[in-house]
Amino acid sequence: MLKVFVDQLSQPCRALIIFLTANKIPHTVHTVALRKGQNRTPEFTKLNPMQKVPVIEEDGFVLTESDAILKYLTAAYSVPDHWYPRQPQKRARVDEYTAWHHMNTRLHASKVFITEVLIPRMTRQPVDDVKLQRALRELDETLDKLETMFLKEKDFLCGDDITLADLLAVCELMQPLGGGRDVLMNRPRLQEWKSRVQTALGDSFDNAHKILYRLKDKNFSKL
Amino acid sequence: MLKVFVDQLSQPCRALIIFLTANKIPHTVHTVALRKGQNRTPEFTKLNPMQKVPVIEEDGFVLTESDAILKYLTAAYSVPDHWYPRQPQKRARVDEYTAWHHMNTRLHASKVFITEVLIPRMTRQPVDDVKLQRALRELDETLDKLETMFLKEKDFLCGDDITLADLLAVCELMQPLGGGRDVLMNRPRLQEWKSRVQTALGDSFDNAHKILYRLKDKNFSKL
Repeated sequence: MLKVFVDQLSQPCRALIIFLTANKIPHTVHTVALRKGQNRTPEFTKLNPMQKVPVIEEDGFVLTESDAILKYLTAAYSVPDHWYPRQPQKRARVDEYTAWHHMNTRLHASKVFITEVLIPRMTRQPVDDVKLQRALRELDETLDKLETMFLKEKDFLCGDDITLADLLAVCELMQPLGGGRDVLMNRPRLQEWKSRVQTALGDSFDNAHKILYRLKDKNFSKL
Repeated sequence: MLKVFVDQLSQPCRALIIFLTANKIPHTVHTVALRKGQNRTPEFTKLNPMQKVPVIEEDGFVLTESDAILKYLTAAYSVPDHWYPRQPQKRARVDEYTAWHHMNTRLHASKVFITEVLIPRMTRQPVDDVKLQRALRELDETLDKLETMFLKEKDFLCGDDITLADLLAVCELMQPLGGGRDVLMNRPRLQEWKSRVQTALGDSFDNAHKILYRLKDKNFSKL
């Protein structure tokens, strides 16, 4: 049985959980709460010396990096081809986005969340507004590129159907909602894209984001 | 015919050129000299609005991101399986490294080169030593992880044979040599790995790095 080690407050972990649920892949969930330091226990460090989530384990095969995990699951399990098409040019579009994702969507949406929510809650200090404005400007440039260079006139980032690219992207763009900030507020085209992604994912999307929706009003320790 | 748009002073461009040469894939090289702003011309911007290299074009199909380009080439051309194995768990190891690469090997080795070579040459100011020392410390952590979490006791980063992971990694780790700095100086295990990678790549490795070897002693304008 596939074991997944996740914290649902982490964006790539939610992408993994949504993928597994939407594709009905049997698995057991092992929660590793980052806010409680559970990623730094000797037991978890033995599993993943990087001390990061998500991690999967399947009969002794341990794999890290959400991008690699999701691609592996499309090869190892029977899932619809649209997630990660086998046709080389279509697959290349997904690989192009996922390569770009790390230093763009992931980096910049995370930075907004970290600056606005994580650091103030952990240090009990007010938000550093200079840093927040810079993070928002950087995210804005990334959103421009998402719209004009990836989405363009298509329904999804890499074509007419949902792929791993949309899944990874949407989970990152949801994260600032944990601080009450909708980064797609003035972005009707990306909002419509997000609605299409949500529709394609069904209940698995809202279920995986429940903990994030609760974060707005609560302290970490009460989650 | 496959067209490739590259600047051989760029690490991922060299990885692409080495891959094409080592695998005898027919292609034409179109040089886009970043130091001369050739990536910002209207013509190149039309091809790649991101204004980055490498880019490939093949019968109207345009692809960016070295990681995606290399994986596409293994699917579209007949190359030995070891580069990007079809067996799902072996392939996952390469995807795991390439996902990690962006925010680690690539980011940190680049930062050393940018701080020590690029910025001083472009601004005609001395090296900012505080920034350089920080960049070197960050690169050191990345090198530790490369050794203990990827290479371990194996011959190559992802197994017993060379893969795209080794190719992308070695080109990044070569870059600081452009400023005369051998970042593997005190790293015998990584040095031995680098020798194995060089041997596996043959002449294509040295040929692609000629421009970098010349950089040490010359001004950009004379390259």
